[in-house]
Amino acid sequence: MNAEIICIGSEILLGDIINTNSQFLSENLTSFGINVFFHTCVGDNENRLAETLKIALNRSNLIFITGGLGPTCDDITKQVIAKTLKINLIENSQLKNTIISKFKEKNIAMPLNNLKQAQIFENSKIFTNEIGTAPGLALTYKNKTTIIVLPGPPNELIPMFKNEVEPFLQKLKQNIIKSKNVYLYGIAESEVDEKIENILKLKNPSVGIYAKPGEIRLRVSCKAKNEKICNDEIEKIVNKIKSKLKNNIVGIDIKSMENALVKTAIENNQTISVAESCTGGNIAAKIVSIKNASKCFKLAAVCYNNEMKQKILGVDPKILNEFGAVSAQVAQQMAQNVRIIANSSIGISTTGIVGPGGEESKTKPIGLVFVGLSTKEKTMAFKLMFKNNKSRTKLIHLTSLFAMNSARKLAENLK
Amino acid sequence: MNAEIICIGSEILLGDIINTNSQFLSENLTSFGINVFFHTCVGDNENRLAETLKIALNRSNLIFITGGLGPTCDDITKQVIAKTLKINLIENSQLKNTIISKFKEKNIAMPLNNLKQAQIFENSKIFTNEIGTAPGLALTYKNKTTIIVLPGPPNELIPMFKNEVEPFLQKLKQNIIKSKNVYLYGIAESEVDEKIENILKLKNPSVGIYAKPGEIRLRVSCKAKNEKICNDEIEKIVNKIKSKLKNNIVGIDIKSMENALVKTAIENNQTISVAESCTGGNIAAKIVSIKNASKCFKLAAVCYNNEMKQKILGVDPKILNEFGAVSAQVAQQMAQNVRIIANSSIGISTTGIVGPGGEESKTKPIGLVFVGLSTKEKTMAFKLMFKNNKSRTKLIHLTSLFAMNSARKLAENLK
Repeated sequence: MNAEIICIGSEILLGDIINTNSQFLSENLTSFGINVFFHTCVGDNENRLAETLKIALNRSNLIFITGGLGPTCDDITKQVIAKTLKINLIENSQLKNTIISKFKEKNIAMPLNNLKQAQIFENSKIFTNEIGTAPGLALTYKNKTTIIVLPGPPNELIPMFKNEVEPFLQKLKQNIIKSKNVYLYGIAESEVDEKIENILKLKNPSVGIYAKPGEIRLRVSCKAKNEKICNDEIEKIVNKIKSKLKNNIVGIDIKSMENALVKTAIENNQTISVAESCTGGNIAAKIVSIKNASKCFKLAAVCYNNEMKQKILGVDPKILNEFGAVSAQVAQQMAQNVRIIANSSIGISTTGIVGPGGEESKTKPIGLVFVGLSTKEKTMAFKLMFKNNKSRTKLIHLTSLFAMNSARKLAENLK
Repeated sequence: MNAEIICIGSEILLGDIINTNSQFLSENLTSFGINVFFHTCVGDNENRLAETLKIALNRSNLIFITGGLGPTCDDITKQVIAKTLKINLIENSQLKNTIISKFKEKNIAMPLNNLKQAQIFENSKIFTNEIGTAPGLALTYKNKTTIIVLPGPPNELIPMFKNEVEPFLQKLKQNIIKSKNVYLYGIAESEVDEKIENILKLKNPSVGIYAKPGEIRLRVSCKAKNEKICNDEIEKIVNKIKSKLKNNIVGIDIKSMENALVKTAIENNQTISVAESCTGGNIAAKIVSIKNASKCFKLAAVCYNNEMKQKILGVDPKILNEFGAVSAQVAQQMAQNVRIIANSSIGISTTGIVGPGGEESKTKPIGLVFVGLSTKEKTMAFKLMFKNNKSRTKLIHLTSLFAMNSARKLAENLK
């Protein structure tokens, strides 16, 4: 099945918004075993939209079209599709009633234009929109091409895809497709390639690698007749990955490092406090972005200069003088003292040179970072040396990941 | 001039990475007065790439092609263009030497494949790549279409576009185009529409609105014979905008609110400390992401529970008991005390209910936030009530923006 995605919206061509729908659909279709060969973006213009649709009909048998389903006169997607394919648009009374009652609920007078959204193609399937008023639609053209029309706003498109389009595609494919994500840390993509080379070559189940700075996600997907076979096959592969990459697995189907840390800390009844210098609050902000953070997070002290390190964290001025703020000794004191001050089970600290300009020297170049960790039993510091002229933002991000992963491992063993 | 953008890369079609190049090019071409009518993304596949190129040649006279310029056998962009247009690729000796010396500098043996990157189209213009080894190229086809080929990695494409492609386009257009950005806060897009309706209708100079949650950017662009006319015309419009939207202007050509705050604080010799509850370190992380932050930022205390608010920030337990942690009184104490502890000129605090679940109540619903501000002269608190079921992340972001903007205004008047 060859798919392509057409996004409609002048605001994308103006560079006003970024086209995230194509990325979302591509990732999900790929893990579904469907090949996506083209993305096109075209404005709300009748001729250009019709031209784009004709090109797609010539080369693809599954066409996703998003956007241009709103109530204004600029929104012409359904009209142009109907005209190009020479099919009829008819008003659906159930959709009409739903739209009218949504306006009544909000106590707003409904502009007549909104009834455009109750129009569907003859013989098309309706996907319910739980958020907005534009339904999604699917139709089969000349028995060979399936066209799926979805609303443009991602907060409408994503739940519609997950809840209604995925089951529809399942039927189309007469197979179930499931997937699981293995989240890795502390290993290079090339090393993953090497260690699980044979697993990466598999066709079904298949394993895809998605790398971001510092993090790697393996997506294990399986296509089979039923859910049980899928799950069993995926489980086998996940276990093989576990045996090969055990030390680098942060979790299965977790969203981020901060999710993993908060989850592990809560499960093991651990509390966390942070003393941040070079990461400047980034670790705290990441932890607090997780909704259950208050159950494990106690304090972060962002002490950017020596005065504050002494006053708030009680770092010994002699140690600061002798070793400098960017040192293992200071990292250890920061981690230990913030843990004691906050009466938490784990203390995390960061101190380093993230540039650009300023404090770096020959012995302490940009990219030199110390991460401190402290529990009742022990206090330690890790020296990191990031290379290749990384930006300030990237150094802060990579340091935060390292610190959170180290704390996660500690929490795991601190039951 | 009708432009279109073709991005080449299977990783985009797999949903592995998001297509930011099309957005960057679109925004910059639009402000340059060039209409972009199509974005296409196609994989590293000879037939599909050739097909896409032929479609583009039929409908556009300015074609941007990005990606597929690397040294591996997957990178076929230049080869397919040459074959489709029936033009020759020739080795450029200067490029060859540059590539060889880049490898020598790094002391790495150069794979022979890399010399592919020294190949250019006959009669094409070279754009220098300051970061990587793939040059950009421009060629004119049949005297009517300009094709511009750029490397895929954004950190190579963006400086190449700014430094070399923009001047090239200037010549092509025989006009200078310049622009300035006015950054606004605390006003809705619809209100901006209303207040500067006449200015938004102008054709040259023209004004575009770009809105993100909580922030609005107005881009004023002008096309004219020389730089002086451009600058003068832009200045006139910026002054008109200033007179209409004075209270909402954060700055001209600043990148973000945190940039504006750090810049204003340093210019006015002010120092900042932050006591964060509901924003959880987000304000500190934003401030510290700016490279000069150490010149004005002293301390952030992220105190997520009452115990820490008392112990670290010295908030009065009676006040905590009487009014609750989410109250104007506590926000004021937090702001004042963090300012005194850090001996800074401005203290900022946040305390609120950002959900989901947990601490909210009928009188203190999700979305209720207090922002405290303190200077030697006065201490105050603002009550904010965000509506419409905003997510935790969005509430934290919007609260941080409000707090930073308030601190920026204070710093402006504290000379």
